[in-house]
Amino acid sequence: MKVRGLPQQNICLPAGFSFCAASAGIKASGRPDLALVQACQGTTAAAVFTKNRVVAAPLKVGRASLTASRGRVRAVIVNSGNANCATGQAGIRACQEVCRELAGLLGLHPSEVFPSSTGIIGVPLPVAKIVLKLPELTAARAATMQGVANFARAIMTTDTRRKLASATFHSGTSAVNVLGIAKGAGMIHPQLATMLVYLFTDATASPSELKHALLYCCDQTFNCISIDGDTSTNDTVLLLASGRSGVRLKQASVRKDFSEALLKVCQSLAEQIVFDGEGVKHVIRLSVEQAKNRPEARQVAQTVAHSLLVKTAWAGADPNWGRILAAVGRSGIAVDPARVSIQIGDQMVCRKGVGCVFDEKRAHKALAQPRCEVRIFLGRGDSSIRFLTTDLTAEYVRINADYST
Amino acid sequence: MKVRGLPQQNICLPAGFSFCAASAGIKASGRPDLALVQACQGTTAAAVFTKNRVVAAPLKVGRASLTASRGRVRAVIVNSGNANCATGQAGIRACQEVCRELAGLLGLHPSEVFPSSTGIIGVPLPVAKIVLKLPELTAARAATMQGVANFARAIMTTDTRRKLASATFHSGTSAVNVLGIAKGAGMIHPQLATMLVYLFTDATASPSELKHALLYCCDQTFNCISIDGDTSTNDTVLLLASGRSGVRLKQASVRKDFSEALLKVCQSLAEQIVFDGEGVKHVIRLSVEQAKNRPEARQVAQTVAHSLLVKTAWAGADPNWGRILAAVGRSGIAVDPARVSIQIGDQMVCRKGVGCVFDEKRAHKALAQPRCEVRIFLGRGDSSIRFLTTDLTAEYVRINADYST
Repeated sequence: MKVRGLPQQNICLPAGFSFCAASAGIKASGRPDLALVQACQGTTAAAVFTKNRVVAAPLKVGRASLTASRGRVRAVIVNSGNANCATGQAGIRACQEVCRELAGLLGLHPSEVFPSSTGIIGVPLPVAKIVLKLPELTAARAATMQGVANFARAIMTTDTRRKLASATFHSGTSAVNVLGIAKGAGMIHPQLATMLVYLFTDATASPSELKHALLYCCDQTFNCISIDGDTSTNDTVLLLASGRSGVRLKQASVRKDFSEALLKVCQSLAEQIVFDGEGVKHVIRLSVEQAKNRPEARQVAQTVAHSLLVKTAWAGADPNWGRILAAVGRSGIAVDPARVSIQIGDQMVCRKGVGCVFDEKRAHKALAQPRCEVRIFLGRGDSSIRFLTTDLTAEYVRINADYST
Repeated sequence: MKVRGLPQQNICLPAGFSFCAASAGIKASGRPDLALVQACQGTTAAAVFTKNRVVAAPLKVGRASLTASRGRVRAVIVNSGNANCATGQAGIRACQEVCRELAGLLGLHPSEVFPSSTGIIGVPLPVAKIVLKLPELTAARAATMQGVANFARAIMTTDTRRKLASATFHSGTSAVNVLGIAKGAGMIHPQLATMLVYLFTDATASPSELKHALLYCCDQTFNCISIDGDTSTNDTVLLLASGRSGVRLKQASVRKDFSEALLKVCQSLAEQIVFDGEGVKHVIRLSVEQAKNRPEARQVAQTVAHSLLVKTAWAGADPNWGRILAAVGRSGIAVDPARVSIQIGDQMVCRKGVGCVFDEKRAHKALAQPRCEVRIFLGRGDSSIRFLTTDLTAEYVRINADYST
């Protein structure tokens, strides 16, 4: 089946979910800005949220609802074009009203509705526009790939393309599907960013089993990417399990298969988010190796991934390892510069703190590719981390100087 | 007297110092890249250096020389165009050779020569070129404003103008002069940056008196500016006292006058550095107020000053306070967003975590000025900090994507 606007990849639809989208007029452009997932009875859920202390209203409401419902979610309502953040008590009430109205239409308890918002901060949520559109929205829901494609499109802000990934594993004769839909673009940094990720599976799992798998996968993927170092007020990763496959996570081997499938989906979405970063021309696979432990590897990786001088050098495909070394030196980790080595592409460019003789043209060519590997060896231990980051281009500045997020 | 290329300001020359510069061919452009100060006998010194763990050779040599000479400096030799950083033991030997050769020419002990370098990292220092030029350089030294202007020009890299400031105070019938010469441009962030600052006075002071005054002034000025958040491997602030005015710092009132004069000079140089930041169009005077203590005020200021989304909004003169609030929220300080207020220009734009109704055009106009005030109120205490930072423009990216530092 040809699905309009969907990337040419094999996406599997887990049983138990239906999707739809509409244009409610929240975005001035008139583009789709309201999206709904309905989940079958018995669907369990787990979520992780931004670590920013400024937290948007839907995250407060969603977190409270998950607690009240004991990890049961029957519907997810997402709007783009307005973050409903820094909107005070009025913002909370606005979010609750949307959930209540939707719950009424679908015959659910309001705490079974999970809300998300993304877009501009500090502007009141246009509740009336949203509520007016809910009947049309709920009528359109369908357990089809076209529904998924419409949902993925409606949650986009400055994203240039939909972000979807799926994986399947088998337990006996039963297939278990995992589907992920995400939005990203700017403001992407560890501890999440204006990144909304919805993960769906037809496995049968308790909320705590889901939470465990979700934390493991986020640590490896969404917490290892950085575009601009800013952390959004609205980041949410939500995992829903319909149980429709009949496959339970009780068994260790099934849990392992499930975690692997979920990781694969999260990895793909994390990559798609970084490759679609605002103004990104080059994606850098940054490894920090020979660290004493993973937190210190992460701290060095973050400092390098966040350095304007490093990121602008990458924009120019300039193999300027001195800037990388200087960023390592100010990372707050007690590195001995005389033990630090740096590799760009397949060449060592700095060995034990001193520049190597290397083929600059080849290093430039490696960095000029859409993706390039940069490895930093700290000479302190056996831990490492793989980070996905980007260059910083004049185009990024243009996007963010012109656009009110 | 008209001094070629010097800003139209009243610069006072402290007695006991002579200055000169030359082109040694370190810069491919052929521009002046070697600068010398000679100080009279008895000159005392104190210095502060980068906190980056990657430290360039001249800083290691200079620090050791200050210890060996017990805070006596008779000459300062600075080259631009090459940072002599990440050059290993060979870099240390190269720096020592320059100091030794200069000491020989001037009849000094090598530990009385203080070296500095700024420019590209990881390229061997062209010692032969420098040594060859030393006789011509030393012959040219003069206690004149032209000498000062030449010195200030030769230490520049991507700076577009010389940075000079001076102040004078009186003790009885004696005048005491303080003169400062700096280079800055990119890579400017608290804990110093490729920022070289040379401060000269004709007061009489012990090295420890100088160190005390210097730390106080750096904390208020050079540690409260940020352009791109990167910290250089070569940052140095050096203060020399010739004693030629005959005015001692023994007396508390003189010490206070001296500190004030030094602070004034440092403040002016810090401002000049920020205004000449790479690609800077707007300078922001950022106050963080109502913090529990100064370190927490500093941490919030740094996070905001370092946020790409905030800096790009400033580039577009966009009064996007949501990005500022989001940066405050991820600063690591336990702020309560419901107590945070933000002022842009003369208007409150966010009060206690919620957006105000304000005149957006007026806020845009305020941010479009070369300098604009942004105040953040944390509602936590009585401490505050004043920070000087900049926008981030596409021009910054162009400069740093094209240029090998």
